[in-house]
Amino acid sequence: MNHIHEECGVFGIYSPKQADLASDCYYALFALQHRGQESAGITVNERGRLRTHKDAGLVEDVFTKDVMEYLGKGNMAVGHVRYGTAGINPVQNAQPIVVNHCKGLMSLAHNGSLTNASELREELELNGSIFHMTSDSEIIAHVIIRERLKCGSIEAAVSKAMDRLDGAYSFVVMSSTKLIAARDPHGFHPMCIGTRPDGSIMFASETCALDAVGATFLRDVQPGEVVIVDKNGLRSDDSHVGKCDKSLCVFEYIYFARPDSVVDGSSVHMARQRAGSFLALEHPCNADVVIGVPDSGLDAAIGYAKTSGIPYGIGFIKNKYIGRTFIQPTQSDRENLVRIKLNPVSATVKGKRVVLVDDSIVRGTTCARIVRLLRDAGATEVHMRSSAPPFLYPCYFGTDVDSQENLVAWNRTVEEVRDIIGVDSLGYLSCENAHKLAENTAGFCTACFDGNYPCTPPKTPDKTRFERGVDE
Amino acid sequence: MNHIHEECGVFGIYSPKQADLASDCYYALFALQHRGQESAGITVNERGRLRTHKDAGLVEDVFTKDVMEYLGKGNMAVGHVRYGTAGINPVQNAQPIVVNHCKGLMSLAHNGSLTNASELREELELNGSIFHMTSDSEIIAHVIIRERLKCGSIEAAVSKAMDRLDGAYSFVVMSSTKLIAARDPHGFHPMCIGTRPDGSIMFASETCALDAVGATFLRDVQPGEVVIVDKNGLRSDDSHVGKCDKSLCVFEYIYFARPDSVVDGSSVHMARQRAGSFLALEHPCNADVVIGVPDSGLDAAIGYAKTSGIPYGIGFIKNKYIGRTFIQPTQSDRENLVRIKLNPVSATVKGKRVVLVDDSIVRGTTCARIVRLLRDAGATEVHMRSSAPPFLYPCYFGTDVDSQENLVAWNRTVEEVRDIIGVDSLGYLSCENAHKLAENTAGFCTACFDGNYPCTPPKTPDKTRFERGVDE
Amino acid sequence: MNHIHEECGVFGIYSPKQADLASDCYYALFALQHRGQESAGITVNERGRLRTHKDAGLVEDVFTKDVMEYLGKGNMAVGHVRYGTAGINPVQNAQPIVVNHCKGLMSLAHNGSLTNASELREELELNGSIFHMTSDSEIIAHVIIRERLKCGSIEAAVSKAMDRLDGAYSFVVMSSTKLIAARDPHGFHPMCIGTRPDGSIMFASETCALDAVGATFLRDVQPGEVVIVDKNGLRSDDSHVGKCDKSLCVFEYIYFARPDSVVDGSSVHMARQRAGSFLALEHPCNADVVIGVPDSGLDAAIGYAKTSGIPYGIGFIKNKYIGRTFIQPTQSDRENLVRIKLNPVSATVKGKRVVLVDDSIVRGTTCARIVRLLRDAGATEVHMRSSAPPFLYPCYFGTDVDSQENLVAWNRTVEEVRDIIGVDSLGYLSCENAHKLAENTAGFCTACFDGNYPCTPPKTPDKTRFERGVDE
Amino acid sequence: MNHIHEECGVFGIYSPKQADLASDCYYALFALQHRGQESAGITVNERGRLRTHKDAGLVEDVFTKDVMEYLGKGNMAVGHVRYGTAGINPVQNAQPIVVNHCKGLMSLAHNGSLTNASELREELELNGSIFHMTSDSEIIAHVIIRERLKCGSIEAAVSKAMDRLDGAYSFVVMSSTKLIAARDPHGFHPMCIGTRPDGSIMFASETCALDAVGATFLRDVQPGEVVIVDKNGLRSDDSHVGKCDKSLCVFEYIYFARPDSVVDGSSVHMARQRAGSFLALEHPCNADVVIGVPDSGLDAAIGYAKTSGIPYGIGFIKNKYIGRTFIQPTQSDRENLVRIKLNPVSATVKGKRVVLVDDSIVRGTTCARIVRLLRDAGATEVHMRSSAPPFLYPCYFGTDVDSQENLVAWNRTVEEVRDIIGVDSLGYLSCENAHKLAENTAGFCTACFDGNYPCTPPKTPDKTRFERGVDE
Repeated sequence: MNHIHEECGVFGIYSPKQADLASDCYYALFALQHRGQESAGITVNERGRLRTHKDAGLVEDVFTKDVMEYLGKGNMAVGHVRYGTAGINPVQNAQPIVVNHCKGLMSLAHNGSLTNASELREELELNGSIFHMTSDSEIIAHVIIRERLKCGSIEAAVSKAMDRLDGAYSFVVMSSTKLIAARDPHGFHPMCIGTRPDGSIMFASETCALDAVGATFLRDVQPGEVVIVDKNGLRSDDSHVGKCDKSLCVFEYIYFARPDSVVDGSSVHMARQRAGSFLALEHPCNADVVIGVPDSGLDAAIGYAKTSGIPYGIGFIKNKYIGRTFIQPTQSDRENLVRIKLNPVSATVKGKRVVLVDDSIVRGTTCARIVRLLRDAGATEVHMRSSAPPFLYPCYFGTDVDSQENLVAWNRTVEEVRDIIGVDSLGYLSCENAHKLAENTAGFCTACFDGNYPCTPPKTPDKTRFERGVDE
Repeated sequence: MNHIHEECGVFGIYSPKQADLASDCYYALFALQHRGQESAGITVNERGRLRTHKDAGLVEDVFTKDVMEYLGKGNMAVGHVRYGTAGINPVQNAQPIVVNHCKGLMSLAHNGSLTNASELREELELNGSIFHMTSDSEIIAHVIIRERLKCGSIEAAVSKAMDRLDGAYSFVVMSSTKLIAARDPHGFHPMCIGTRPDGSIMFASETCALDAVGATFLRDVQPGEVVIVDKNGLRSDDSHVGKCDKSLCVFEYIYFARPDSVVDGSSVHMARQRAGSFLALEHPCNADVVIGVPDSGLDAAIGYAKTSGIPYGIGFIKNKYIGRTFIQPTQSDRENLVRIKLNPVSATVKGKRVVLVDDSIVRGTTCARIVRLLRDAGATEVHMRSSAPPFLYPCYFGTDVDSQENLVAWNRTVEEVRDIIGVDSLGYLSCENAHKLAENTAGFCTACFDGNYPCTPPKTPDKTRFERGVDE
Repeated sequence: MNHIHEECGVFGIYSPKQADLASDCYYALFALQHRGQESAGITVNERGRLRTHKDAGLVEDVFTKDVMEYLGKGNMAVGHVRYGTAGINPVQNAQPIVVNHCKGLMSLAHNGSLTNASELREELELNGSIFHMTSDSEIIAHVIIRERLKCGSIEAAVSKAMDRLDGAYSFVVMSSTKLIAARDPHGFHPMCIGTRPDGSIMFASETCALDAVGATFLRDVQPGEVVIVDKNGLRSDDSHVGKCDKSLCVFEYIYFARPDSVVDGSSVHMARQRAGSFLALEHPCNADVVIGVPDSGLDAAIGYAKTSGIPYGIGFIKNKYIGRTFIQPTQSDRENLVRIKLNPVSATVKGKRVVLVDDSIVRGTTCARIVRLLRDAGATEVHMRSSAPPFLYPCYFGTDVDSQENLVAWNRTVEEVRDIIGVDSLGYLSCENAHKLAENTAGFCTACFDGNYPCTPPKTPDKTRFERGVDE
Repeated sequence: MNHIHEECGVFGIYSPKQADLASDCYYALFALQHRGQESAGITVNERGRLRTHKDAGLVEDVFTKDVMEYLGKGNMAVGHVRYGTAGINPVQNAQPIVVNHCKGLMSLAHNGSLTNASELREELELNGSIFHMTSDSEIIAHVIIRERLKCGSIEAAVSKAMDRLDGAYSFVVMSSTKLIAARDPHGFHPMCIGTRPDGSIMFASETCALDAVGATFLRDVQPGEVVIVDKNGLRSDDSHVGKCDKSLCVFEYIYFARPDSVVDGSSVHMARQRAGSFLALEHPCNADVVIGVPDSGLDAAIGYAKTSGIPYGIGFIKNKYIGRTFIQPTQSDRENLVRIKLNPVSATVKGKRVVLVDDSIVRGTTCARIVRLLRDAGATEVHMRSSAPPFLYPCYFGTDVDSQENLVAWNRTVEEVRDIIGVDSLGYLSCENAHKLAENTAGFCTACFDGNYPCTPPKTPDKTRFERGVDE
């Protein structure tokens, strides 16, 4: 647990004619793989008949040629990648969630976390619902289906369901004939719309997925908006829009989203460069070279270098061949692990005063090892700059900020953290500047840094609640 | 589709102390593997906390050392093997079904088929239930859970649920603290109880699973009985016992069950020998040697040989190395496939008049190829004897008798079938004698042979009903 | 190590036109799989260009669809299955051995063991040869190639090579244009010739491989014979024929060969039945039923039953689902392992005096467990009959008879062995009758039973000689 | 075939005491993985007994926990990674090559290509040698072994063998008691020596492998040098040193070696930066941003930016999740493939004049696609700079420069190539400056650029010579 993780990536596509949409999902999910590496899934809708394949593993492992052939052609499709804690059978929580109800089919792919999940689930269970997953996404499916029994259409059911859901959610729902995207009124996580010359319309967590399928960015789904696509084209239900202040997760810019994505109108790469520039202004430094920790610190390092005038250099080579089955060194050699993954370029740092930029500091252990590598390679000074403020508070909106006792910044001064990670100076981006990262966007959730929660935290925040048994 | 298949094997174990019950399930499921080869699953209950692993594949493939370690020790466990049609993701229907309800945990493993599944499912869906599988077993889980909301105990909920379930079911349910077995009032499929010197109590589809775990047969679960095991020991709810006439599936004796099992008090091996003896009496024949088709025809062949006085011989060698990944010969060589799997022993049949005994004849194609092999090997005459009557009617109780147009006996005289399979004479066991197969048991369902259904067939018998979508 | 193992199975095919000979090899190797389960390999010769695939594993695992496609069509092919001791990289010794020499291509598949391997290998090494395997087969390849440098043809080289090879060998060699089979002058192991209506000619270790590819048995390769097939048809070099007395391994009849094979003119199944008949005459017994240990004891059990007049019964059900990845029970449960693989049929043995027939007794441990199972199942007496004499001496001709200290019969009386395996009486086939097993064959090697070696044993019999290093 | 490939990476380690050298090899091979991805192998020497595992695949796939356990501890070890053309059974050419000769054990790992391979192989074959591989490395093993029969020691045999080997070779040989490194007199490919505080001594193709095992760089192996390590420590045979002019492959600096390696005294990263600086001087340009093609063009792009004063930017995001099993888009979508792997960052290039730096241009197709991506992303001008001169001539020394008809620069002017790849201007590094890339090194082979071969090219340059058959 060396970093904060996003919990999901979502993609949906509607085509006016039967086409190989499974391949579109496949390439889009590759582009979204950084948002979740635990499981992946695709549902293809061929004239109202759904075929789904989902499993634990990376997109490339889950979707073999045989599977792609099975999924076949269709006129709509939904895809999902999921991050989650390890387990022997993570397939249980894989998405899309497919519901084969007598009132209609549904496939759901969701990103986010509800704050009233426990209350909703208990209420549903007492009315006869049975849950098979430990994720919130299944609760959303149940709420929609129960509304569907009372509503005339699936989009009406989605809109009614939103009255009952609190917290963060960006999801795509596919029925027999419609593809629907919804984003919570706070707009915690991104969702955008794209189009392609062949008439296809897509929803995606990030624009990089649109690029991957040759589509053009149309616009973002607004916080609170429900967007429907069917044979009559694109239309919107904005009855929940404007109900809350926008509070997009600022860590989407700092780390989660891919640098080549544009989120709510602002380039992620530029936001990171701006973080570096702010850092250069907030925490200047006499040094000879600015380097970033690959890959997450590189953009901000360039920003720091530009604003400070200190030259940018390549400080580390990352071993790109280390995959899933890499054998971890034995305990005594664990110190070497960082070096195997990340080797310093002596030519860049030897005899130099180095500014080291990374996106954030969580537990501090990896950071301390990286600093030691630089000193071993001959760096005379190491000045650490973090393009995120210190992590201090839990997140309830779909990311996995560690518990406070594991956060190196919790209950410690900057000087204490500086000494723990062994640097000559340490500077964090200020919360104030974190709110200014994006050129064209305003309204961020920075609760993990300052504790200002945009909506009420859950009463029972224990995430493992749904895994525990209950005594009879 | 060369044979009739059973749809499941079930096992449950209760131990007074924490023990390696996952291993017991593993060995028991090996013994029951003949009842289902599509998927396998085990749930272990460690002090009210359930750990489950289930997947497509044979027991040996699904349960690796890592999985067994994950399952760990416990004081109760449930296991299941399932037969089903192929598909890219058969894992969807794997059992046990685990329900993590706020009123209590439940793991369910089921063998059988409901005749009112469609009606129950629609009613449940209109009350908000969502189904993820296409099997009847999930319906049973929902009915029990809905009763559980109204009842004071899980055993009461099971008993109430049985009022709503029509058709064939033998299932094991595990709650936080109790292990419960139930068998439908007709007793379509077997379920027995075993004990072990260490105080463990088991439920199993067949006694061979008890042997595999070193247990002793105690008694059969009666048709309609609910048997409960918990820290207070074994007790029984017989409120549904005697409600119907017993109608055990006769094909359990003829083919499904393993010859070393004892079902409802009668040895399966002896029942098959008796089938052979009846055949010798009903359809005598002048011949030099009696051989059986391995493995299912061997027991009856011995019976035929004993009663007729014609010597028994080994007629075929079965290739035991042909497994899951065997590459089927190309179409033009398909004729050779039977020979690769089953080679005649010329020394036994050359120049001989041969009586060939098999358990049954379904489509007749494999049978015809086997007969051709014998003639090629030098048999001068081949007299076929089937220890089942001709298949003529569909089964709605948990086996997969083919549709009538595929059954070779449908709309054909015995002479016509004889000519199709190319034998000199053909004799089937009579329905009358089928009812006398077991020494100590009476009351059989022989509906697939005579059309006498012990309970009302389903209104919508289409098995793929739950896989289809519904237009919005 | 519960049984004696054969070390190889060999197949070769010549076709007058390009054909799918890889498939023929595939099905033939399936039929020969019982002769070796460690590795498998096929070489296809397409107009003088060889394509080979060989790997550790069963035929079915080694040859996937992709591999079969790669092998493609050809006009000659050679296949091999190998038994060997376990190891992390058994692929090293997989065959066929392919040699791409500037004087010509060669693919070699061999069954047997040389008695002068050490001497030959050292001589070759001192003349510059390098060896990559630990098997004798590579030595044969080197000897042939060195002769080839001096001879005008590959068949002349094979014949010259035979002057240098001592011990047991049956091999097939394929050059660019010829397919050649050779069998040592003692004829230790079988090799036969088959033909097919399409003009193909095959060599195989056993006739069951001919059956598997739709071929007809033509004749056996004689001890000492070299048989050549090429575009000019079949011809023979008999210059080594008759040099020695024939000494076919008698254990080919008792256990190695498949019962449906005919070896050197005699049916294997009949030979085993005769073994049972001899046993009934040598060691009669008052009993109620005769059963065989599946699968190797069944044929002899029928012979015992027929000659003694005691009824034959099915005593055990063998679990056919236990494969390569079966998880062995923990040490404490090891006793159960035999029961999981082999469950007694109580209906057959309960309250009965049982004659138990198996092909042989090696260490006695498995035998003792099987006897215990029978007694647990209610057998009142167990009389063991072995259709092989006691193992007492090492084999140097291609099988792996255990070292003497592990052989239960070594240094023990029949009564002592009887007590160890826990039976009421024990009878072995006599060596004298072992020599009479086959109807039409004479001249057996029974050295493992009586120590009469047909040719000089190796000076350095250590089989691991070639795996050890040598100090510089 | 979009790039030039190195053919191997080599590692050897000697430890004064038994240690987990397999793990050292594992981590070293990870660091050398970029030098070969086809197969990997390790031999461990435990007191004169060798254990080897090698197979097709990446280091991580070949070495599982079970394999590492099998390899175990030892006092010497050798490792190898290999690049090669695809094939169904690339395991055939995997190294190290292990020879278990009666005069001594040997394990050999080799990088390079002989120019007299055909002559040597034919001569050896006519003296009785048999070859199993198609690689030159086996020839080296045979030459050493044949010399060993005449020499008193393995190191003398290596030195004598070098008299017979022409071309490029850097290899490590391990005997029972000695570890020996040799480098051809031209020094085509690198080889360095490292030491560790625990007394271990290592040979490696690159210094990054020393870093990965916590070792310190001692010195490079000189062209023509033989270095021996045994219990008496490190010693050198320099009888071949200085026989030729040094001609290190210049492409080691431009592309093959890892940027964090130091080759023959010069930093690879700095050499690439210098290439960028030379390009800025040779081919200046009016532009707004300098970007590199990840990962191979990044170092040179920084050099270009520094010298030109044009800002450096991040132009592309490379998808790091695309692995071995990625499903290639269908032909019609192939255009998208580059985009899926490499997405431009619009924020960096939109409305900008872009300098695009890559290490080299081979066929030009990938390059053209990358340029199109930049234009689609809004770049107004694209100026391509290649830090290698144009490829024009075949390489015979261990790399796989494509055949001339596939090289875009062959028979074309710079302007023609510029138009093919669709850029506004195109500039290559000059051959003259290529010779000045390294600070501390002189003497390069630039034959692929200028046709000046440091030694005679092979008479029969056909690389597939050893795969073909020979008619009898």
